[in-house]
Parts: sequence; structure tokens; C-alpha cells
Amino acid sequence: MRIVVDAMGGDHAPAAVVEGVVDAIKEFDVNITLTGLQDKIEEELRKYDYPKDKISIAHTDEVVGMHEPATTSIRKKKNSSISIGIRLLKEPGHDAFISAGNTGAVVAAATINLGMLQGVERPAIGLVIPSLKQFSFLIDAGANTDAKPQHLLQSALLARVYAREVLGVKNPTLGLLNIGEEASKGTGFSKETHKMLEEHVENFIGNVEASEVYTGKSNCIICDGFVGNIVLKVSEGLMESAGKLMKREIKKNPLAMLGALILKFTLKDIKKLADYSEYGGAPLLGVNGLVMISHGRSNPKAIKNAIRATMREVEHGIIDIMIKEVAGHGVEGK
Amino acid sequence: MRIVVDAMGGDHAPAAVVEGVVDAIKEFDVNITLTGLQDKIEEELRKYDYPKDKISIAHTDEVVGMHEPATTSIRKKKNSSISIGIRLLKEPGHDAFISAGNTGAVVAAATINLGMLQGVERPAIGLVIPSLKQFSFLIDAGANTDAKPQHLLQSALLARVYAREVLGVKNPTLGLLNIGEEASKGTGFSKETHKMLEEHVENFIGNVEASEVYTGKSNCIICDGFVGNIVLKVSEGLMESAGKLMKREIKKNPLAMLGALILKFTLKDIKKLADYSEYGGAPLLGVNGLVMISHGRSNPKAIKNAIRATMREVEHGIIDIMIKEVAGHGVEGK
Repeated sequence: MRIVVDAMGGDHAPAAVVEGVVDAIKEFDVNITLTGLQDKIEEELRKYDYPKDKISIAHTDEVVGMHEPATTSIRKKKNSSISIGIRLLKEPGHDAFISAGNTGAVVAAATINLGMLQGVERPAIGLVIPSLKQFSFLIDAGANTDAKPQHLLQSALLARVYAREVLGVKNPTLGLLNIGEEASKGTGFSKETHKMLEEHVENFIGNVEASEVYTGKSNCIICDGFVGNIVLKVSEGLMESAGKLMKREIKKNPLAMLGALILKFTLKDIKKLADYSEYGGAPLLGVNGLVMISHGRSNPKAIKNAIRATMREVEHGIIDIMIKEVAGHGVEGK
Repeated sequence: MRIVVDAMGGDHAPAAVVEGVVDAIKEFDVNITLTGLQDKIEEELRKYDYPKDKISIAHTDEVVGMHEPATTSIRKKKNSSISIGIRLLKEPGHDAFISAGNTGAVVAAATINLGMLQGVERPAIGLVIPSLKQFSFLIDAGANTDAKPQHLLQSALLARVYAREVLGVKNPTLGLLNIGEEASKGTGFSKETHKMLEEHVENFIGNVEASEVYTGKSNCIICDGFVGNIVLKVSEGLMESAGKLMKREIKKNPLAMLGALILKFTLKDIKKLADYSEYGGAPLLGVNGLVMISHGRSNPKAIKNAIRATMREVEHGIIDIMIKEVAGHGVEGK
């Protein structure tokens, strides 16, 4: 198995990416192709002792910045580490692509270069949320922000395959993120989506409120990319602000500092609730290829985790299964 | 000043409501009218020693359940503690209404019975969020879920008055909740709203991402009621799940239990970040009267806090100011 990794993606690239990759090849049975500026990558690689034949480099002379506008950057920088990496997937022997770089650019490059799976009109980002029970798989976390109900239905079918094949849930439940539990709740968009999911999706449990995202009430949670991005960002922001507030309060009180020291590891566990680097990345679903988007802040551990998660996707051949299951519903463009 | 309080509203009503009211009249210069089942209210009042002339009861023989569908309950139960309470505002000497009952029913009853302020087409729920700096005032937290851009503009004008007059910020900043900072981000709806806010609202700082809700980057944060409800519920859910996870982890380890004991009060402070009972309630803005919605789980302290917050609204005469400031923009129905 060979996974292509964007060496230039993320706030701590290429150092954190290269370190994570080296850790991964030592621990897992996987080969890696790193895309990016060859000099920089080699400089990082020289720091480590590792089986040289397991890592190769595909040099690219362009890099997309973390905050560049997605579509223009992809159009102008055809040889970026993101575009080259994604195009490699069309060559035999390259199984998946991982990037902690500019999310919008990865989504755009994947959509343009790989195309969509038959029966799927828009890409969607899946988010594995560690909840109280097992996990929640929220989709879409921000790829498709001007969605139509049938896009959500298509994402729902993809989500069920992912939850079953990669996350190991036998017959995953699926809920529609809404502002109330009754079918009559929400906007016109919510009601239409609810109806489509009810008709086409097995084990659909109806509407799920946002308060249930972290309880694990539903294995899969469906929403449009705008709302999904709000869920993701508000959660990250809340945990970060709570952490800062805690530090500020604790510093005022020596006894509290002792308490915090004792609780350090427990508190770290709590923070993981809203930290998607734990799973390693967020799969971009719907495109015709395996693409994993890691968090911009990814540290080496997150990169290693992303490689492990992506390996599971490859092992289970989820693209073929998705094609079969979505096509069976004939839910394309109405 | 006389504030009408729904004695039957909330999960712990009437006990928690009556206790909070008794605490409030002892501490503040305010008279209260309690609406609800007279027997039940008197039974609770008998538990306390208090100046009898400061509390009166308006008997109602109907109660709206916490989970009844909002509009039908208001249509069928014209003499509920909510409807009677709101109708009292139209009689002289009644300054404001507070309920911890069914939010949808309060919104519906207020809209029908009080009507809208001139220049405002839809009600909006404001949420005072204690953030790292000062606070954020998020509007709309769920009253108007099928909103148009001009509704958000109207809410924005109301929010600025509230933040300035009641929350005491001189020239409040205002941001549009969106999935990116650039004006070009988001849905067609976001872009249109952005343009309207830019044209009409003083101190508009542009788009604000959901990760900034808890940092206090913007004093006021504008969004439609669907998204606002998601922000509110996901925050509550995350804090609750984090709390449960923490308890579970701490129980596994006696040393961690000690740490938690020491940190108890600090951790309570953190939880307040996503707990709107701290402010006491969420003002329902846009209707022609002062209505405060308290959390269904309100304890006596939350009810007392809601009374104090509502007193500030009355003292500052915000209805008159809102009428003046919104009318000046001529932003009604386009």
C-alpha cells in the first residue's frame, strides 16, 4: 500500500508531517510518497533513521498557503503539493492522499482532478467525533455549503458505508441534525431532507438535536456544510476558550494549580472530545479517490493517526462499496 | 416596577420559580405578579417569609407543557400562564414578562399578543454568552428559523441597542456568524446579509467564525435562528458531555478525585461559559413588550438573575430606544 502525503500542508509543515510519516512507516506496513519542495523534505528526513525504501518524494515547486482562496490557488498553482498529490492517485500504485493543508484547496483539487463518484453530486467532509458512547460521524463538516436536500441524502449513503466499513459499526444509525426532534421541525430544507432520508436510508432515526452530537445518540449525523462547519468551529472554540479560562483561573490560586496538576491527564482526555486530530483527519467523501484532510494544526501524532485511518479505508476498499451502495438508490440530481 | 413571572414555566416549576421570586423581592426593589395555578403557587409561597404586598397572583387554569407544539398550544390554551402573563403587559403597571416555560409557546404568544415593533418583521432571541473578554451577545438563538437577510439586519439593530443600553458596551461591535472571515464566504444568504449589515449597521466588523463565539471578538454576533439554535445546543451538549466524561474518568482514579475536589470551583466557572442561566435568561427582541425567556432547567438563582436582567431592561426603557433606532433605518420588508 502506498499513501501520498502532502509534506507542505499544515501550520507545522514540513517538520511535523515528516516526523509523523517516519513514525508511521516504522509502526505500520505502508509506503509513503511525500509531495512538496524536495530540499525542505530531505532536510527534515535527514533527522531520522528509517527504512529508506519506504519513503519517496514527488517534488513540486509550488505550495498553497493555508489562507489562500481555494479555487484561485488551485487554478493558478497547478503544480502545488496538493494538486500533484491528488493527481498521483490516478496513477497505479497510489492508494490515497492525505493533506493537513488548505481545506478549501484540497476539496477543490480533489473535485476537479478526481471527479465525483457516480450518483454523487457534491463532496462532503466527514468528521469522526469521539462522543460519550463510541463516536459520532458527522457529515458534512464544510465541503458543500450551499447544499440541496439530495446532496445530504447522497452524503448519508456515503456516511453509512464509512461508519460500517471503516469505523466498524454493524448497522449504523443515522440522524438529521435539526433544531427539534419532531419531523415537522426546522426549515423547509430540513423537512424535505427528512423526507428523502426516511425514504432511502436504512436505520434512519429521524431528527437529532445539536445537544446530542457529543452523546453518541446517532452513529451518523447529517447536515449541510455550513451548519457542519459551525458545529466544528464552535466546539473547537468553546474547548479552547474553556481551556484558557481554566488556566487563567488556576493561576490565581496555588491550590487550584495543584489540583490541575493532578488532573492534567484527565483534562487532556476531555479536550479530545472536540479535537479531530485524535482520529487523524476528516475523510473527504464523494470524490472518486481516497482523500483525508488533517487539521491545520496537526502534530506528528495526528499525521500518524491520519495514516492509520487512511490505511483502514484502503484495506476495506470503500470506494467500490460506496459506488455500489449509492448507485443502487438512483438519488442523483432531481 | 412590576414584573410578571410565569410560575408554571420550567422543569422545576413552580417550586424553583417561586423560590427565585421570593429571593428577588428581598434583594431588589421590584414587585412580582405570578401567573399560574393559584393553589400550587400559594402552597409554595407558604414556605417563605416575605413582604406579602410585593407578590400578587394572577390565577390561570391552564398550563402549556414543556414539549407541546408551540402554535397549537397557544391557540388551544388561551388562558395558560404564558398567554395570560403576556396579555398582562398590555395593561398599565406591568413592565415585563419572564418565563422558563416552553420557548416556542412564549415566542408565539408574544408575537400574536404584543405584535412586532415598527420596522421589525420577526422576533429574535438574544443570548448573552460569557466569553473570555466581557461577553458575546448572540442573536437569533432560535425564534426565526426561516429567516431572510432583512430579518437579520433588523435583529442586528436591536442587538446593538441591547448591548449598549442593557449590557453597557459603549459602541458595540457587530459581526455576522459565517464559515470564513472574507466577505465572499458562505452561502448566497450570508453574502446578501453581509452587504445589508455593511450598509446599515454602525461598527460592523464583518464576518466572524464560530470559533470566535467564545473569545468575545465581537460584542454582537448575528445569525439566523436555525444556526443560532445549533450554536446554543452544541455548546450545551459539549459542556455536558465533557462534564460527564470527566466524572467518569475521575472516578477511575482516587488521585484524580482529589484533584477534582480541589478544582471544583474553577471547573464550575468553566461550565458557566456555555450556561445561559448565568445571565438568567434570553431576551426575546422585536416584539412590542419586554419578554425574557429563561432556561427550562432554571433553578431559583437563574430566576432571580432573570429578574435582575429584566429590571435593567425596564430601567433603560429599551423598547422606546429600539423603536427609534430601527425606524430610522427604514429596513422593513423589501
